[in-house]
Amino acid sequence: MTITITAFEKSPDGGKGLARDTRVRWALEEVGLPYEVRLVSFKALKEPAHLSRHPFGQIPTYEEGGLVLFETGAIVLHLAQNHPGLLPDDADARARAIAWMFAAVNTIEPPILELFTAAFLERDKPWAAERVPMVKERIRDRLRPLAARLGDAEWLDGEFSAGDLMMASVLLRTRSSGLLDEFPTLAAYVARGEARPAYQRAFAAQLAINAP
Amino acid sequence: MTITITAFEKSPDGGKGLARDTRVRWALEEVGLPYEVRLVSFKALKEPAHLSRHPFGQIPTYEEGGLVLFETGAIVLHLAQNHPGLLPDDADARARAIAWMFAAVNTIEPPILELFTAAFLERDKPWAAERVPMVKERIRDRLRPLAARLGDAEWLDGEFSAGDLMMASVLLRTRSSGLLDEFPTLAAYVARGEARPAYQRAFAAQLAINAP
Repeated sequence: MTITITAFEKSPDGGKGLARDTRVRWALEEVGLPYEVRLVSFKALKEPAHLSRHPFGQIPTYEEGGLVLFETGAIVLHLAQNHPGLLPDDADARARAIAWMFAAVNTIEPPILELFTAAFLERDKPWAAERVPMVKERIRDRLRPLAARLGDAEWLDGEFSAGDLMMASVLLRTRSSGLLDEFPTLAAYVARGEARPAYQRAFAAQLAINAP
Repeated sequence: MTITITAFEKSPDGGKGLARDTRVRWALEEVGLPYEVRLVSFKALKEPAHLSRHPFGQIPTYEEGGLVLFETGAIVLHLAQNHPGLLPDDADARARAIAWMFAAVNTIEPPILELFTAAFLERDKPWAAERVPMVKERIRDRLRPLAARLGDAEWLDGEFSAGDLMMASVLLRTRSSGLLDEFPTLAAYVARGEARPAYQRAFAAQLAINAP
């Protein structure tokens, strides 16, 4: 059955892996499934055809036969639950890997999204200079316990899982601010994720679309 | 097997259902599982015993035999996948219900968390008066398409599911700001959630701990 995902026709980051379709491409590559990509313009994101697939007018979406999914976490989990390679076999270990997926999007990512708001959307506001460091400190407050839990381990809980895929993808967004490099073990963790052949293929496929 | 969750010894909202253990209690009540509660003080949240269960020093946690979980979404999903009542039988419908769980925590909740930051943590900052309305507008930008998708339906996708449980729980947090009531169909949706006997039992159990 053909799998089709959507991605930005022109990614705001120039295809450097920060758009959320990277996470889905990475998961597809990890489980070894071929997929097709439908590119969507910013204008088309908010048109009825796309909104029928994604109520919030974002990318990525996922289509497989009659199934239409949105939300990156849900798509990655769907792939992980139906194909070997992204979740351990043991039931308890699976539940813990899924907990890390939720931790990525609901504990780590919110203050990172807030930094994007502070540093970009509110860049010209008079409070930007005082506020950006406050938001950065809130991110550190999450990265510190994450680094403590990871310790010297390679991945968060045993073998590489969908939890690591989501966590590394979220952490990637802190690199440009310099925050990631303040936590060398987390920076190395993200680098291990990026070094995986599946990530390399996903990144290259996304960059190819956005290459000048 | 005994299920034990953790909750605040003294909830910041006085037990009005906004602490995240409400979501887990609600799910447990929906699937009809008894559970025990270990109350945790703010001080104990950051001590090693609790951090071993929850790396970020938050509540709730979930213990069942040898399994220890954190992240509300992951706990609710674990219950939903292992007990009837919170996910449809059809595989595609299950995947869509899980997509709404992720939409609740990764699309709808982040700007709501940002409003808490803006309206409480940064209340005394000189930018609060100008910034709070901006953050509220960002929440409206998410509630508008959510209301459009819900339409006149009772729940987001067919029968009540873990997706609705998580979405209603997240939306509840917008009530005190007046934002929820700007969207009458969403306010009615949340009220339908609150009217469920399982929610009523979860709410009462939490309030009982915090009653003066």
